[in-house]
Amino acid sequence: MASISGFPEFLPEGRMAEMRAIDILRSVFELHGFANIQTRAVEPLTELSRKGEITKEVYVVRRLHAEAGDVDELGLHFDLTVPFARYVLDNAGKLTFPFRRYQIQPAWRGERPQEGRYREFWQADIDIVSESTLGFHHDIEVVLVMLEACDRLHKELGIPPVVMRINNRKLIQGFYAGLGVADPLAAIQIVDKLAKIGDSGVRALLAEQGVGAAEIEKILAFASIQTSQDDIEDRVRSLGVVDELVEQGLHEVQALFTAVHHRFPDNVVIDCKIARGLDYYTGSVFELELSGLESLGTVCAGGRYDSLATDGKRTYPGVGISFGISRVFAPMIATGVLVASRAVPSVVLVAVDSDDQRAQADEVATALRARGICCEVSPNAQKYGKQIRFADRRGIPYVWFGPVLGQVKDIRTGDQEDADAHAWSPDPQDLRPVILRRDA
Amino acid sequence: MASISGFPEFLPEGRMAEMRAIDILRSVFELHGFANIQTRAVEPLTELSRKGEITKEVYVVRRLHAEAGDVDELGLHFDLTVPFARYVLDNAGKLTFPFRRYQIQPAWRGERPQEGRYREFWQADIDIVSESTLGFHHDIEVVLVMLEACDRLHKELGIPPVVMRINNRKLIQGFYAGLGVADPLAAIQIVDKLAKIGDSGVRALLAEQGVGAAEIEKILAFASIQTSQDDIEDRVRSLGVVDELVEQGLHEVQALFTAVHHRFPDNVVIDCKIARGLDYYTGSVFELELSGLESLGTVCAGGRYDSLATDGKRTYPGVGISFGISRVFAPMIATGVLVASRAVPSVVLVAVDSDDQRAQADEVATALRARGICCEVSPNAQKYGKQIRFADRRGIPYVWFGPVLGQVKDIRTGDQEDADAHAWSPDPQDLRPVILRRDA
Repeated sequence: MASISGFPEFLPEGRMAEMRAIDILRSVFELHGFANIQTRAVEPLTELSRKGEITKEVYVVRRLHAEAGDVDELGLHFDLTVPFARYVLDNAGKLTFPFRRYQIQPAWRGERPQEGRYREFWQADIDIVSESTLGFHHDIEVVLVMLEACDRLHKELGIPPVVMRINNRKLIQGFYAGLGVADPLAAIQIVDKLAKIGDSGVRALLAEQGVGAAEIEKILAFASIQTSQDDIEDRVRSLGVVDELVEQGLHEVQALFTAVHHRFPDNVVIDCKIARGLDYYTGSVFELELSGLESLGTVCAGGRYDSLATDGKRTYPGVGISFGISRVFAPMIATGVLVASRAVPSVVLVAVDSDDQRAQADEVATALRARGICCEVSPNAQKYGKQIRFADRRGIPYVWFGPVLGQVKDIRTGDQEDADAHAWSPDPQDLRPVILRRDA
Repeated sequence: MASISGFPEFLPEGRMAEMRAIDILRSVFELHGFANIQTRAVEPLTELSRKGEITKEVYVVRRLHAEAGDVDELGLHFDLTVPFARYVLDNAGKLTFPFRRYQIQPAWRGERPQEGRYREFWQADIDIVSESTLGFHHDIEVVLVMLEACDRLHKELGIPPVVMRINNRKLIQGFYAGLGVADPLAAIQIVDKLAKIGDSGVRALLAEQGVGAAEIEKILAFASIQTSQDDIEDRVRSLGVVDELVEQGLHEVQALFTAVHHRFPDNVVIDCKIARGLDYYTGSVFELELSGLESLGTVCAGGRYDSLATDGKRTYPGVGISFGISRVFAPMIATGVLVASRAVPSVVLVAVDSDDQRAQADEVATALRARGICCEVSPNAQKYGKQIRFADRRGIPYVWFGPVLGQVKDIRTGDQEDADAHAWSPDPQDLRPVILRRDA
């Protein structure tokens, strides 16, 4: 059985790298007070549809032994936002708002896989959701938290520096409305294709929508604005479009930029073509790409939605951002760029002198484990040279010989010394597998 | 939208308890040198079938937008053993044997849910698999590792003490063969129903199989043997059934019992009715239940299989054991018996004096986080009393007032003191949420 396209799996030394990434994300999110939740893998198909229509490539889940007349009711979730919105409504009476949660789970899409796309992919989402109103400073907060996480992933796992591109849907919609565009949402979806179809393609599609030639040029001029300086207001106003929403959007995107730029001056750009296409954002929008790996596309994205969820009576506004763990790490792990220094947690292999001495070796291992030192006992009592090679093949750096008051050898240097299993510790750098970045 | 039967979800304070359980399992497994892997959620339906037949309640996965003629090919895995066997074959050339892995993932079964049964449930599996041969001491090892994990779950999360019931398929099969039972496997499956259908039910079904009355009584006498002393050989031999496999099985089950009893004298019993029914074990078998919660049934089970996987040329024997995380913890969490001391990771709420002082509060939070102290900044600048109540509702024990050189209040005692956010630390017991056991 070969692998199934679009469902990545890793060897243990690759999985360790992925786990380290997840541990880093979890650690940063918890430092900022986000609580973890997990939602079930399946949602009712009604939840996975939008206005009755399922636009995504959903995987339907059905009992093999279902009765002939049974109706398909469940599907695998295709993101973590839809389940979270449902979870908030389910538990609204028991949660305290603003509710800050992170969620690290796989999601599934039945797309025809292509490079960098997966059918099963892990995401790490943070969202802050409240009842009725949610302060704008939370928009700033989720961006800063994610950039802090990316900074740690950069320093500890060697992912490239990131660029967070920010924009604001009020600014875009206000700009289009101020230009007199009849269907701003349709225009947004057209401009969202700019990178794919180019200026000429966008011109043609906007013209089809009945947008005038002068307005089209203004839209393209607006979409081309990118800045990492404090000049967004001047640059937009120079296009001469006046609208109250434009002012609100400018104010917000400038405030977001200022706050993020203060902490991460090299990692944030205002980019007026960012709109998050079909998604239902209503304010800030964010997209993150990896410097030098722009070909991977957007690896992290999010924004503000004034009504993440509603039960008819109450509305829950939210802001969130989602990091594509598989998108970023699966290629690095699959190609061996990111790999653990050893394929096992063990830092010590306890050698076995002879089969009837296994209890002695177990005693050594128990003493080491009691102090948090991961180890395993040799599976057999072959000659020491073979046991050392067993450790070497796994990248286990130390081999223990004899009883608790025995000897330990660093098989990398050959140094061997007397040691007490109740007291000896490995070099702290060896305690856990190190995640290495091996550039091609 | 209400919850879907059989798919448990928890509030954040419950999820924290579940995460702590998973962290404990992970920690114990890694101390013993088990490496983590994850397998995809889906397997080809051919992998999920046994001898061409799918006996389990598999969930089939199908693209919603599949073409009319497309054939169902994928199903959600119903355990972690089948995917592991497939993974070993997929990666045999890249793994080093004996290969020790742990796997903590959900599995799915489309059963009609009943109490204590789930359609989506988390399991924690450890297995050791090798090429051609695998030492018997690994049978002992996986049992000891799981009992060590259960001991930590008992001490740290208050699950009841456990009883590991052990037996050996060679012993059972040899006993039945020695009795002249024509189809030992069918007899095993009948005796496996003993708890459900009682002696009389077993008698009737065995008679239907053509087993004689005297042999049936011997089978029932054998199945009734339970001992936690060194007398299994005597008790089995007193039944007068002679078979080479009986001797092998007795030797193995006695060796397993001796080794496990040495470390965990109160937690192991030889129980000759344990057979692990339909599963394809070939030697040691184990079942674990919680003392006083026997009604939950078997919460952890496993055994030795001489051919976990085979590619035609090579055979991979293995031994493993699987812990039912959902089976044990979902009821405790759902009923509130197990809950975190607070619903958020934050140990400190940093109060905000006024909206234009938010940057000052952010600076305090950054200083605390730099030293690993989880905290969040108040979402608003309400009166201090309201901000304290905000912390109290979440169980956050400390509130910080003012700048980095400010004051911190323990809101449980009301004590307030001057503090430097670059130096102050909470009581170490407060640093992480504590998992509490609240007996009903």
